[in-house]
Amino acid sequence: MDALTAYKKHLAETAKLSSAQALLNWDQQTHMPRKALAFRSQVSGALSKMIFERSVSDELGRYLEELEKRENLTDEERGSVHRVGKNYRRRKAVPPEFVEEVAIARSSAQAAWAEAKEASDYSLFEPHLEKMVGYARRLADYIGYEDHPYDTLLEDYEPGMTCAELRGIIEPLRQELLPFLERLLRDGAKPESSPFVGSFDIDVQRRLAHRALEVIGYDFAAGGLDDVVHPFTITIGTGDVRVTNRYVENHLGPGLFAALHEGGHALYNQGMRESLLPLGLSRGASNGIHESQSRLIENQIGRSRPFWTFFQPVLAEYFPQFSSVAPDALHAAANIVSPSLIRVEADEVTYNFHIMLRFEIEMGLLDGSIAVTDLPSLWNETIERYLGVVPPDDAQGCLQDVHWSMGAFGYFPSYMLGNLYAAQLLTAIRKEIPTLDDQVASGDFGTLLAWLRREVHDVGAIYEPKELIERITGETLDPSHFIAYVSEKYSEIYKL
Amino acid sequence: MDALTAYKKHLAETAKLSSAQALLNWDQQTHMPRKALAFRSQVSGALSKMIFERSVSDELGRYLEELEKRENLTDEERGSVHRVGKNYRRRKAVPPEFVEEVAIARSSAQAAWAEAKEASDYSLFEPHLEKMVGYARRLADYIGYEDHPYDTLLEDYEPGMTCAELRGIIEPLRQELLPFLERLLRDGAKPESSPFVGSFDIDVQRRLAHRALEVIGYDFAAGGLDDVVHPFTITIGTGDVRVTNRYVENHLGPGLFAALHEGGHALYNQGMRESLLPLGLSRGASNGIHESQSRLIENQIGRSRPFWTFFQPVLAEYFPQFSSVAPDALHAAANIVSPSLIRVEADEVTYNFHIMLRFEIEMGLLDGSIAVTDLPSLWNETIERYLGVVPPDDAQGCLQDVHWSMGAFGYFPSYMLGNLYAAQLLTAIRKEIPTLDDQVASGDFGTLLAWLRREVHDVGAIYEPKELIERITGETLDPSHFIAYVSEKYSEIYKL
Repeated sequence: MDALTAYKKHLAETAKLSSAQALLNWDQQTHMPRKALAFRSQVSGALSKMIFERSVSDELGRYLEELEKRENLTDEERGSVHRVGKNYRRRKAVPPEFVEEVAIARSSAQAAWAEAKEASDYSLFEPHLEKMVGYARRLADYIGYEDHPYDTLLEDYEPGMTCAELRGIIEPLRQELLPFLERLLRDGAKPESSPFVGSFDIDVQRRLAHRALEVIGYDFAAGGLDDVVHPFTITIGTGDVRVTNRYVENHLGPGLFAALHEGGHALYNQGMRESLLPLGLSRGASNGIHESQSRLIENQIGRSRPFWTFFQPVLAEYFPQFSSVAPDALHAAANIVSPSLIRVEADEVTYNFHIMLRFEIEMGLLDGSIAVTDLPSLWNETIERYLGVVPPDDAQGCLQDVHWSMGAFGYFPSYMLGNLYAAQLLTAIRKEIPTLDDQVASGDFGTLLAWLRREVHDVGAIYEPKELIERITGETLDPSHFIAYVSEKYSEIYKL
Repeated sequence: MDALTAYKKHLAETAKLSSAQALLNWDQQTHMPRKALAFRSQVSGALSKMIFERSVSDELGRYLEELEKRENLTDEERGSVHRVGKNYRRRKAVPPEFVEEVAIARSSAQAAWAEAKEASDYSLFEPHLEKMVGYARRLADYIGYEDHPYDTLLEDYEPGMTCAELRGIIEPLRQELLPFLERLLRDGAKPESSPFVGSFDIDVQRRLAHRALEVIGYDFAAGGLDDVVHPFTITIGTGDVRVTNRYVENHLGPGLFAALHEGGHALYNQGMRESLLPLGLSRGASNGIHESQSRLIENQIGRSRPFWTFFQPVLAEYFPQFSSVAPDALHAAANIVSPSLIRVEADEVTYNFHIMLRFEIEMGLLDGSIAVTDLPSLWNETIERYLGVVPPDDAQGCLQDVHWSMGAFGYFPSYMLGNLYAAQLLTAIRKEIPTLDDQVASGDFGTLLAWLRREVHDVGAIYEPKELIERITGETLDPSHFIAYVSEKYSEIYKL
């Protein structure tokens, strides 16, 4: 069999196992009963092992070796060989004993983190974090890097991105946004949050979320909406991209905006051409690009004035009390800027500061310029400097996120990059669709979705984020789009 | 590695794949979106192939060969080696090309059956049925048999059962029940069905089904209840036995009794000791024994007078109109005998005649004494002779069931055997628990469930049905228990 045919066959078989694995994961968080956990872990473990072994098999190595020399590959095939090959080499560089050791340590670290957070006692987590940082350094050493050990960790989440580039992106962002935030809080007119606060039947909220997903173009014949504790979106297979959500009885915001957020992720996954799934290219160009799609729908569209012009009467169909609330009041209430301690609750203006804080700390931990023991004080000082708030305890400070206990260093920047990509894409969209606001105000999301499909969704992970963003917008990632977007939007809402 | 250890490891790995496969099946009928079907079929196919290959692997063959010689095995181990070994040899006896040929023919036959049933045109299905009968004969030839080709097909559903034995069971059943049914219809006082007819909110019915499952002892922490078109129960893994159900808006019966029926299956699966799953012994002793557990809960308990004494006020909590209906009226309405054309809608008295009809036809088709082309007329004559009803068309006659289009000859007797086993078990239960009726009338199902667990559920498929029923009741399967149960119960309800 020709190497290309054999390669595709190998990946297609892996894709089937990955689909079963995805279903196991989805089920575990949606429908699986409590007592099923122990055996389910074994089932997931068995499938993960099979998938892992296929990703580092000698057979695959031989196909890659031959295909990496070929010149007559299509873009899809080249993208696949590039991504799969990189993954193959990165995994082969790490000894299996090390992987196993980390997996065991990770379980303990996660348990210790949960306990430490519960008790708000950093000392319970500190020795585990020390270990996880050590593993992250060793991982970077195994795989190798040129400049900073953090660069090679970033690669898993944002291929091609480096510390140096991130610094270059963050610096102007900080310089522009810090004084803007200060001015906003000092001189601005803070809107009322009251419209979204009250008592909202969960089942009606669920139907509203369903409607919101339909409105933006999510295809329920190729998906579904289920309840979970932490919302996520997952591709289970071709024609099967599922959204999950959660609702808060006394606040309409979390359930509605999470639905739009996950809907943005889901549109990306539903929009990828079918041929990418069996080529290992259906996870999106990067975590940052994926996040750009969710943020674009949730924030740039879902928290825009035109959206609320359209959505206020829709909302009133579900909760009649909104029939007398002005769209402008809902738009304002959806955009309150409020420096807070917790990243996941942060607004568009303050969100990126939460990421800057984590990025600085992660870099320092990796290169040894920050000691694990100094983390709580450093965290508290930095967040006060950025946002003027001081955590009353470490549970609301450096213990708030699960990521480090999992050894996931390098993940956080994706969240910020998502915001920046989204703003840059929106600039490009506005150029091509000058009537975007009118369309959104009339509930027509078709042209927008067609643009996203054509430019972003369809090609999936064929191109790395750098190449993709340049192909679409004609320029490299530039934070000025986000700065302009935020300044303009919030100056208006806050009447600066 | 010792052969026994290696054997157990081999089966435990297969059990994990089977668990993933079970989840794929459950999901396909509960949550999977429409557009996922094509790819899902590939995923299921890949897993099925892996599971099949493990069940006929040379490795497994070697372990079996050694273990079948061993004398110092536990009951569990012996049961496993016996069942797995039989399955191994039966599968090895059939050429892979044949399996593939049948699979392809089955797809066409199922499609043709659906079309034929829709159009009520037997001629569309006839050539396909001819083929499926031919395959069933060839399958019997490959595997081998002593007396009748049907014997070896029965083995898949009711291990150890033969045509000759079935005839010996059916004959007294027919001789007793036919005149009883005649007398019942002629001289009996038919109860009113009206209490269960009306308009019943589906969501409230769903909550009622949930309550009914809780009442009988189904453990929701190790399961769940979902909506489907055709209810079923499935073991996804240890601690994970899920029930599915459907509801009819204008009749309370189908949703409630199907929940009790599936609940009976689910109690069986939840009650098996954990060690059986990785030994391939967690599917129950046979289809007939499994069906005995569902029928016992649905009919012998769920349609009993004591049950309705307890359940009438429970029902009234969900549908207040029942607070003024006497338990006796509900009990009577749940036990209306009405000869009908459709097996799945049949009552306890007429049900077995539907099976006798199919058993006679299947045997005849297999040994050539019945021609495929004569099926419709033969069907219509026989059902008229048994039940006095004449199908107006073949859709309501010989085309009503899907089984034959799937090549599943030998399955139907399980349904009848379930009724007979259930009655025989109930006789044994009443001996050991003389206060059963009082317990049920007060909503206490604990002693009953403990008995079923100890005698039936716990041992799963360790013993074949013949051995199991003798171990429990001290005698071989005897239809007189069912005859006595039916005569007594319906003589009273029908005031004979």
